[in-house]
Amino acid sequence: MKNNTFDEIAEQINSAESLLLFPHVNMDGDTLGSCAALCHSLRSAGKECWVLYEGSVPLNLKFMTGDMFTEDENIIESADISMCIDCGDTGRLGVRKDKFLTSPVTICIDHHTTTDPFCQFNYIDPQAAATGQLIFKLLRTMNIKIDKQAGEAIFAAITTDTGNFQYTNTSKETHLIAAELYDSGIDFNSVSVQIYENKRKEKILITSRSLETLKMVSEGRGGIARVTQEMLAETGAEMSETDGIVEEIRCIAGVEISCLLKEDDENVVKVSMRVKNKGNVAEIAAKYNGGGHVKAAGFTLQMSMDEAFDTVSAEIIENIRKYG
Amino acid sequence: MKNNTFDEIAEQINSAESLLLFPHVNMDGDTLGSCAALCHSLRSAGKECWVLYEGSVPLNLKFMTGDMFTEDENIIESADISMCIDCGDTGRLGVRKDKFLTSPVTICIDHHTTTDPFCQFNYIDPQAAATGQLIFKLLRTMNIKIDKQAGEAIFAAITTDTGNFQYTNTSKETHLIAAELYDSGIDFNSVSVQIYENKRKEKILITSRSLETLKMVSEGRGGIARVTQEMLAETGAEMSETDGIVEEIRCIAGVEISCLLKEDDENVVKVSMRVKNKGNVAEIAAKYNGGGHVKAAGFTLQMSMDEAFDTVSAEIIENIRKYG
Repeated sequence: MKNNTFDEIAEQINSAESLLLFPHVNMDGDTLGSCAALCHSLRSAGKECWVLYEGSVPLNLKFMTGDMFTEDENIIESADISMCIDCGDTGRLGVRKDKFLTSPVTICIDHHTTTDPFCQFNYIDPQAAATGQLIFKLLRTMNIKIDKQAGEAIFAAITTDTGNFQYTNTSKETHLIAAELYDSGIDFNSVSVQIYENKRKEKILITSRSLETLKMVSEGRGGIARVTQEMLAETGAEMSETDGIVEEIRCIAGVEISCLLKEDDENVVKVSMRVKNKGNVAEIAAKYNGGGHVKAAGFTLQMSMDEAFDTVSAEIIENIRKYG
Repeated sequence: MKNNTFDEIAEQINSAESLLLFPHVNMDGDTLGSCAALCHSLRSAGKECWVLYEGSVPLNLKFMTGDMFTEDENIIESADISMCIDCGDTGRLGVRKDKFLTSPVTICIDHHTTTDPFCQFNYIDPQAAATGQLIFKLLRTMNIKIDKQAGEAIFAAITTDTGNFQYTNTSKETHLIAAELYDSGIDFNSVSVQIYENKRKEKILITSRSLETLKMVSEGRGGIARVTQEMLAETGAEMSETDGIVEEIRCIAGVEISCLLKEDDENVVKVSMRVKNKGNVAEIAAKYNGGGHVKAAGFTLQMSMDEAFDTVSAEIIENIRKYG
């Protein structure tokens, strides 16, 4: 795949009057922040621009949507350009795929690895820590001043996708861009409070309830916790709010493989696994028709919680013996 | 107070043969990382140098101490220079104060506000996000190359003291220094895993047990949880491991004032309070002979847990009414 240059993409945008921006489904901070920053900036530059999304906006990211986000496909009947942002795969456009393809010009700005770009113009950089970094560089190329609002959205995109500058994807360039954002007068701390101090009480409670079921295996090198339907009912939490628990278990000193067993239905247990340094959970997941990476994988077991615990526990012990 | 320049301090260090570095008591990532970076770099430059500490090294920071940290006051009988790092107050030198003052030259590098510097040479910059930033600039002034080991210790100092670049003390310069550290080949992610994925299981358990006692007041704008001696005994945790719980409560959407009640002894309850945006907990603490800042304060109540809950709950409701 050969990328276009930001200059070529800027030329297309400059000659357009109306643009629709498409975040990926299951919106996260990077797709949403990148869309918000670009939409706000293009409007400031005189363009008609909207972010067309589907699904729900996470509570802690709502502050960025302003009057720019819509679910109404007819907000612009036929946009000059459709841009997919942080999304390099039509599958991640959900039901908006057909609408996306109605524009005469399509552009993709993304940092996910893809084998099959589907737009006419593409800037896909898997080395970029966040798509927010690419939006920053595109706006620079277009000589559009990044103001406080756009700067805060780009900061949100970058800080969420880099785990606050801690994940391996973070680079020297990430920090240099963050430094430059300070010149636009961003209140990064207020962004941070919005993103991280906006958890539902129910999420805190289900996390606590689940962590109390923690069992250690393999002399403390494996940690396994559970979430049952009963625990969800008691705390009022949704299953999606158990995100993060398996990483919390990985944070325990000595733990190399962490695991969360999620009771999806009677005798249906979804399993999430993580590796700190040593281990290969993709190998375990593959045995049970699951998927993922060496350090993060998942699969489903058709059995009771207790049986699932025994199964997973044996796999962890074996995996640690092999790689530990 | 007038600071010396880094040049003046460098001149002193250059003409010395032996140096003792003093972190503050209750060592944190900034004091420890700054000492480790400076000690390693001065040794590389041919100096005899040790970090003289007291108390215990937190489990998650041990990776930085190498063979540089000692509790033995006689490791150097009489050092040419004593330097206190991230510590601008003799009270924070603990029992090492006399030893510190035996050197003919004393130097302070710190970023805490102080009214009464006690060293002959001082570089105290309350605008610096972390003392680690000042160590970076001192080493630059001295033309000492920051290698991987020193770079990782400075990164640890900065990332812990800025809450991973999220606290208001973070500045453009913080990110520029972080960017430069990448040139020394640091493995920032491995530092991050050491620091953040090294929690005692007991800490996770006491956090969970405590959060399950959470009660909301003032229509969800106040959140109060408890830790009892019984809970500590059940989980095997120490009271010091309850650090962070009150911030966890502040992270709940809608909460403006969070509070943790810690049963210190029978009818002795220590109270920690935090503010998200609106509120003034210093005002509450002052009423009960406690101390702190507008957004973080604490005090002690001589009463039962249930009475403490009622007292604190009434104060939070009133404070939110006043400032909310």
